[in-house]
Amino acid sequence: MTIVTRKQQESLQESLQQVVRLLDRHRVVEDMVHRQDMAKHELVEQLVHKQNLVELQKKLASLHPADVAHILEALPLFDRLLVWELVKSEYDGEILLEVSDAVRESLLADMENYEIIAAAEHLDADELADLVPDLSSEVRSELLGGLDDEERAQLQSALSYTDDEVGSLMDFEMVTIRDDVTLEVVLRYLRRFDELPNHTDKLFVVDHEQTLKGVLAINRLLVSDPDLTVHDAMATDVVTFHGHDDVGDAAQAFERYDLVSAPVVDSNHKVIGRLTVDMMVDVIREESDAEVLSLAGLKEEDLFSSVWKSAKNRWPWLAVNICTAFIASRVIGAFEETITHLVALAALMPIVSGIGGNTGTQTITLIIRGLALGQINPSNSGRLIGKEVGIALLNGLVWGSVLGVIAWLLYRQVSLGVVMMAAMMLNLLVAALVGILVPLTMQKLGRDPAYGSSVLLTATTDSMGFFIFLGLASVFLM
Amino acid sequence: MTIVTRKQQESLQESLQQVVRLLDRHRVVEDMVHRQDMAKHELVEQLVHKQNLVELQKKLASLHPADVAHILEALPLFDRLLVWELVKSEYDGEILLEVSDAVRESLLADMENYEIIAAAEHLDADELADLVPDLSSEVRSELLGGLDDEERAQLQSALSYTDDEVGSLMDFEMVTIRDDVTLEVVLRYLRRFDELPNHTDKLFVVDHEQTLKGVLAINRLLVSDPDLTVHDAMATDVVTFHGHDDVGDAAQAFERYDLVSAPVVDSNHKVIGRLTVDMMVDVIREESDAEVLSLAGLKEEDLFSSVWKSAKNRWPWLAVNICTAFIASRVIGAFEETITHLVALAALMPIVSGIGGNTGTQTITLIIRGLALGQINPSNSGRLIGKEVGIALLNGLVWGSVLGVIAWLLYRQVSLGVVMMAAMMLNLLVAALVGILVPLTMQKLGRDPAYGSSVLLTATTDSMGFFIFLGLASVFLM
Repeated sequence: MTIVTRKQQESLQESLQQVVRLLDRHRVVEDMVHRQDMAKHELVEQLVHKQNLVELQKKLASLHPADVAHILEALPLFDRLLVWELVKSEYDGEILLEVSDAVRESLLADMENYEIIAAAEHLDADELADLVPDLSSEVRSELLGGLDDEERAQLQSALSYTDDEVGSLMDFEMVTIRDDVTLEVVLRYLRRFDELPNHTDKLFVVDHEQTLKGVLAINRLLVSDPDLTVHDAMATDVVTFHGHDDVGDAAQAFERYDLVSAPVVDSNHKVIGRLTVDMMVDVIREESDAEVLSLAGLKEEDLFSSVWKSAKNRWPWLAVNICTAFIASRVIGAFEETITHLVALAALMPIVSGIGGNTGTQTITLIIRGLALGQINPSNSGRLIGKEVGIALLNGLVWGSVLGVIAWLLYRQVSLGVVMMAAMMLNLLVAALVGILVPLTMQKLGRDPAYGSSVLLTATTDSMGFFIFLGLASVFLM
Repeated sequence: MTIVTRKQQESLQESLQQVVRLLDRHRVVEDMVHRQDMAKHELVEQLVHKQNLVELQKKLASLHPADVAHILEALPLFDRLLVWELVKSEYDGEILLEVSDAVRESLLADMENYEIIAAAEHLDADELADLVPDLSSEVRSELLGGLDDEERAQLQSALSYTDDEVGSLMDFEMVTIRDDVTLEVVLRYLRRFDELPNHTDKLFVVDHEQTLKGVLAINRLLVSDPDLTVHDAMATDVVTFHGHDDVGDAAQAFERYDLVSAPVVDSNHKVIGRLTVDMMVDVIREESDAEVLSLAGLKEEDLFSSVWKSAKNRWPWLAVNICTAFIASRVIGAFEETITHLVALAALMPIVSGIGGNTGTQTITLIIRGLALGQINPSNSGRLIGKEVGIALLNGLVWGSVLGVIAWLLYRQVSLGVVMMAAMMLNLLVAALVGILVPLTMQKLGRDPAYGSSVLLTATTDSMGFFIFLGLASVFLM
């Protein structure tokens, strides 16, 4: 007997490379077939062609659905759809769940309605709920018709929550037990299952009304005396969630308390579902991805979507940027006369605005992170402002002086150096204040502090940088 | 019996607020005591003072160590150390593990050697390994002396790996079994434990040389016939890791295959440790944090560290920025004569450089993310370059025209509009190429593609933006 040990990431990269190689070979043969207009050797090449695809199919069948999903993400659209055709249909549903929203869209667009419905048949209600929003109303109603009453109720319950509520990620499969039986009975009861729900690390102890009374950890069940009652072995200090709790908060709780699963209860404390760590890991990954992307003004984007589609994804931010750049440009325009008198100002002004933007980005990044981790609150934000202002003053003094001296040496004008230093100091102050107040205000208004904050920041540091520097120059140097 | 249900995030915020309130009250009393120079009411106030601290201590004792860690992160240094004093010492070790490196440093600095050693006594070898690098050599050797042979060997093994290797996060506690016994025997064997190691969702099946032969999932153990042998019930298709595997890759494997724990083996396939999902969640969080911070040129920073310390953390990047800003400034300096002739150029040039920087940031963010997720490889990078160049040309055409028209309308000069459009188009091309090639090259050189990429990007788009725009202007408009 041999153990298939997957040294995972490497073998996944290898799988991806193998798929790409097979696709390439397939393409070469296809090219030959086309070029020769299906003339001689036709039969042979057709065979080779088929053989490549068979090999590819075999390779794909050997892979975990999550790996297939990963490979689909990494393939350009044409290849992606070819591979998607070859995947065994029974895994379609799982793979659709694993890929990112952008890629899922491209896969669904290529599927017939009956294929989608076939793929969805293998999914649980909570998984279906993930998929349903992406389906046409036609497919959706057909799907709903095919469910039994319990599944339909579960699906509707899951759909009644928004994407960022715990209820939307709830698993409905779980094992519940009563507290008056012995562990021996529990062990016997479990043996009647074909398998336990994934990530079952605890059993939920409920009364006859499904009200949660505690949890029995599987590990406790295994080490305890079988004659003990559930009541004596269970834990009553349980981390529970409500359907409307924020998923990000739930993920942080999983992280903090090292949870594998946790019950979701309604307002009467009845168990309505279960959260599992695999979902929470996905939430953490997605939230951090979204944060990085939104700092750059992006939504999730399929790496291999068309130029047109990607361009549209990036345009909203670009349009905003053009407006802010235009405003900054008009600020400079107002000082054109000053610049004509002293053209050195044109060369020095981007230093003031650029460094303001960069220090502000540092501040804003730290603040956004502190907010996301719940470390910043009204009681300490004053102190943070103080600290950032302090840093801005220190930096303004140190680096402003350095740049002031450089400006003086370059242009042999002491007053220019002094203006440079003063402008740096003031713009760093502006950057610090904007960098801290913008995300705090966003948060207070109930908006995502990451999204758009950095546009607002650089817009301000640019315009203010030019205004402060050129303004000081026209007052003191003209 | 009532169940303590913690609606977690909220109650944590409440705890934090409560602690802050108690600290405030404590401070008020202390101020009074000081102001009155310990005169009358002395006794009463001393009592109130004490009472506050007792209440605070009680509150802290009721919290999970991870929550105490969270509160410590959110407190300014002075309050943090006060709270730290009040925390029950038996949890010190756990809390030190939970806080960020920056905060840990501030806490350790406040502890006596014997306190550190007492805190470390409650930790396992793999946890100690996390802490040891932050300790003075004195404390370290004393600690090592207090360990038994097995623990010392484990600690040294853990320390022999670098921070980004799986071995450094390995847990040494695990349950191994033989494959020739029945499940009944396994169940009886488990009952001899006081408790199972955390996150035990599978038992490792080994031979007499500790060579891994398979795993027995706990959930399988529970549902199977007790008369079955381990051999018949175990799974042989096991995801395993090696000590030198990258932790990020391991975390991605945990994410993809929804693992709770996995064996770590040596080159002879002997089990040497275990990875658990809680560690991997921390890795995912830390990696994404590091990515966000390194995009802004930051290292992890204690939100409440001193101005001086924070400033030093931000200076390396600031220094680089000042150099690149200086270079861009000199590029403009070279065209001072051109600007004197046509001062409109000074007002328009930041638009060209700024928008180049922003579109480049979008590209670089997507590429860095694709690299981190392993979606970009040599076979598809060509296609990505093609796509980004396509987007740059499209954007250049569309937005370049818009800006060209605006420039024309503002300054009533058609040729200026044409130069503006051409410069935009070229700088967007530069931005796209730099945005894609810089991270790819970094990755090829084995370096972190996020760190410093965006400095290099904006440095290029600034300097090139000014050069292209002013260069074109001096050729075609003078």
